[in-house]
Amino acid sequence: MPKRPTPETLTRFAAIVGEKGVIRDPQTQQPYLEEWRNLWTGRTPLILRPASTDEVSRIMALASETETAIVPQSGNTGLVGGQIPNPDGSEVLLSLDRMTRILTVDAEDFSITVEAGATLASVQAAAAEHDRLFPLSLASEGSCRIGGNLGSNAGGVNVIAYGNARDLCLGLEVVLANGRVLSQLRALRKDNTGYDLRNLFIGSEGTLGIITKAVLKLFPRPRRYDTAFIAVPSPAAAVTLLSRFKQHANSGVVAFELIPEIVVTFVTKHMGVRSPLPAGSPWFVLAEFADAGESAMEDALAAALDEGLATDAAVAQTEAQRLAFWELREKLSDSQKFEGGSIKHDVSVPVSRIPAFIAEAIPAVERFMPGCRFMCFGHIGDGNLHFNVSQPVGMDKQAYLGRWAEISHIVHEVVLAHGGSISAEHGIGQLKREDMRRIKSATELEVMWSLKRMLDPKGILNPGKVLPKI
Amino acid sequence: MPKRPTPETLTRFAAIVGEKGVIRDPQTQQPYLEEWRNLWTGRTPLILRPASTDEVSRIMALASETETAIVPQSGNTGLVGGQIPNPDGSEVLLSLDRMTRILTVDAEDFSITVEAGATLASVQAAAAEHDRLFPLSLASEGSCRIGGNLGSNAGGVNVIAYGNARDLCLGLEVVLANGRVLSQLRALRKDNTGYDLRNLFIGSEGTLGIITKAVLKLFPRPRRYDTAFIAVPSPAAAVTLLSRFKQHANSGVVAFELIPEIVVTFVTKHMGVRSPLPAGSPWFVLAEFADAGESAMEDALAAALDEGLATDAAVAQTEAQRLAFWELREKLSDSQKFEGGSIKHDVSVPVSRIPAFIAEAIPAVERFMPGCRFMCFGHIGDGNLHFNVSQPVGMDKQAYLGRWAEISHIVHEVVLAHGGSISAEHGIGQLKREDMRRIKSATELEVMWSLKRMLDPKGILNPGKVLPKI
Repeated sequence: MPKRPTPETLTRFAAIVGEKGVIRDPQTQQPYLEEWRNLWTGRTPLILRPASTDEVSRIMALASETETAIVPQSGNTGLVGGQIPNPDGSEVLLSLDRMTRILTVDAEDFSITVEAGATLASVQAAAAEHDRLFPLSLASEGSCRIGGNLGSNAGGVNVIAYGNARDLCLGLEVVLANGRVLSQLRALRKDNTGYDLRNLFIGSEGTLGIITKAVLKLFPRPRRYDTAFIAVPSPAAAVTLLSRFKQHANSGVVAFELIPEIVVTFVTKHMGVRSPLPAGSPWFVLAEFADAGESAMEDALAAALDEGLATDAAVAQTEAQRLAFWELREKLSDSQKFEGGSIKHDVSVPVSRIPAFIAEAIPAVERFMPGCRFMCFGHIGDGNLHFNVSQPVGMDKQAYLGRWAEISHIVHEVVLAHGGSISAEHGIGQLKREDMRRIKSATELEVMWSLKRMLDPKGILNPGKVLPKI
Repeated sequence: MPKRPTPETLTRFAAIVGEKGVIRDPQTQQPYLEEWRNLWTGRTPLILRPASTDEVSRIMALASETETAIVPQSGNTGLVGGQIPNPDGSEVLLSLDRMTRILTVDAEDFSITVEAGATLASVQAAAAEHDRLFPLSLASEGSCRIGGNLGSNAGGVNVIAYGNARDLCLGLEVVLANGRVLSQLRALRKDNTGYDLRNLFIGSEGTLGIITKAVLKLFPRPRRYDTAFIAVPSPAAAVTLLSRFKQHANSGVVAFELIPEIVVTFVTKHMGVRSPLPAGSPWFVLAEFADAGESAMEDALAAALDEGLATDAAVAQTEAQRLAFWELREKLSDSQKFEGGSIKHDVSVPVSRIPAFIAEAIPAVERFMPGCRFMCFGHIGDGNLHFNVSQPVGMDKQAYLGRWAEISHIVHEVVLAHGGSISAEHGIGQLKREDMRRIKSATELEVMWSLKRMLDPKGILNPGKVLPKI
């Protein structure tokens, strides 16, 4: 159990980073302590904003000596409370927001080396300046930072072609709980020398070490996009359509998003966005090809219409139209706010199980609470759905949100029955920590706890996150 | 330290698998104990060939109880001695060669589930039957098995587009040192629930657990290949050419192999293979696009000739020609045998450093031993070169091979100076175990040893492999 830091300890922490790296004033601290969905608020005696790996290392050495809990924070955009300290005010928050440098871009190696506090948008921009693509793309890309993207193994809309944050990382520098620096900043595509340590830290949500730098993969910047908004009769048709598209464009299929009619209705009604197609189809797909052959999308759509996998389609004719299609996708989440309470799920199943999952999960929730509205959209190319359930019309919002645990339990049971995951891309944090007991075997939990004890024997790194109490 | 098994212990091991799962006769054991380059020969009192995960689990439980060393073996095609037991005959060999089942192929999920003893070729064939591609491809694919491919994180010619074995794995089942089964046979593209255990075992060469089953990714089977054999003036031109090709065909560039003129000379002279281009260029590239646009290769080559990145090119006009191009590539290694001793290196550097690496490594070896011939070929799209050094003409072969350590040291120093790896795809095994001390930091080695002690406290899993003694 970590100890509450004494005033002397806090003074020693502050001395490491100097006055401009310290925030003590509660009002100035506020943006670091509130999570944007307002599910968690933390308290901390001290926010430390180190400017270098060396400072992070000295902070952790002192934390280890004094058994002080450290909560690493990157862009504070996480959705499961992993970045928020305990409300009892006993934990020190370490923000990476002063370590934002782009260190090197090697265009011929298709790699970039950055500090962990660089925003995702700044990495994308640095890549673009060298005519390269950094393909990780999320709604929060202007604020989220690479350290958090890696710490939570972020996903997003292009995972189908480029993989998760994990797949985009070639090398890492990590500060361990004892302050030692594990440096593996190698820009190598192939390196089979000993155990893979990098992937231990990626996705560990700051509980095993603090990522301070990373080498990331870059890709060619696509010269051509073909983007279509497609009406499909069912999720099963969408899954088969995806197979067909992959056969037409292979790895050129860079996005494939499923969108139900009700979501299109919400987003056009509340967000001032036009739908590319008229209403009247129960489901839509937003699909994008990158650098596929000139007629690939046209051919793929013609075949799909023939086969009955699609009933209508609009192809973006200009870049402005393409961006308008994507605007609809990006505003989906926000549109739900106008329809009252929304109970959100970030789940995945094998791609082929998507239709069965939807066919079982919707009636299961409907039996529990008639009138719920199903905002079930997402990256079905990865088997990943944001199965968000909007409240019945007219119900009290707080009363509805009070049923979060029950409704989630119903949805998650269906997910698990299909061999799925209850956290596809958002992580565990505080929100799903106690679920770990249900979704992991005793052996999995034991190995995870052993790793935690091995790398953080004093339990000072982001306590109370990811692993359930044992 | 593991103990030499008593006759009673051996009887108990044999009882787990039954008589048809046991090999005691030294002559029948021979193929399991000799490594194909004849660098290592092992001895064992008993080869166990379990038929199920349950039998593997019971073997490990007994091994843990009796502190018996177990050497897991898959296809016995490894190149670093990782699969060969100690010559003192104290270790039991566990072969996976009876666990060869293809369990399920899910074409719409683009995934396949197999037992670890399935040969790579059988997995490729099962995928093809469902019109899918399993893209891992190696010279030994008829004999090597998936458990070993994952245990050694195998590479091969298509890593540039599809990744290493690590990248192709969605889920694993692993038997731990204590016999417990860690089951993570999930077919999920996104699953952020806790620490990534899968990647700990992949590439650990059987020292942390025994992989018994795997879920692997499948891909669309390409409808069209464009394959070219290209004369290039220099490695620098080849690296720039690769950038240009990626801009023309993006992720459709599925192979990009550098081949020096001397290798083409050897392979045409000794292997009865014709070169697609006349001699007279110092370097060649074998490049392949999959499912790129119809004119993508033609356009890319025209631009390259214009820019002086290529001086000549032959494009395969038929599938037979394409296979002939690849035959040349596949017979490179064997052709070296006809030229006396060959000292082999499997190294990687960042792709952009390939030209500098070659420009420094060749003269460094030449200074040490004039007359060496440099068979420096490989997957430069991954920064991976097989920097093989053939002996000077007329030198005694054994005398030459006696200088292996010295020549390797020279090559590896240049690799390390360029931030490279001395084992890009073959692993550490016995061959490079003591090099680990030189190439890894104290912190890296400490974390690796901690992992080993945590997962195998009695040191019974493949002792003496991967990690140097401390």
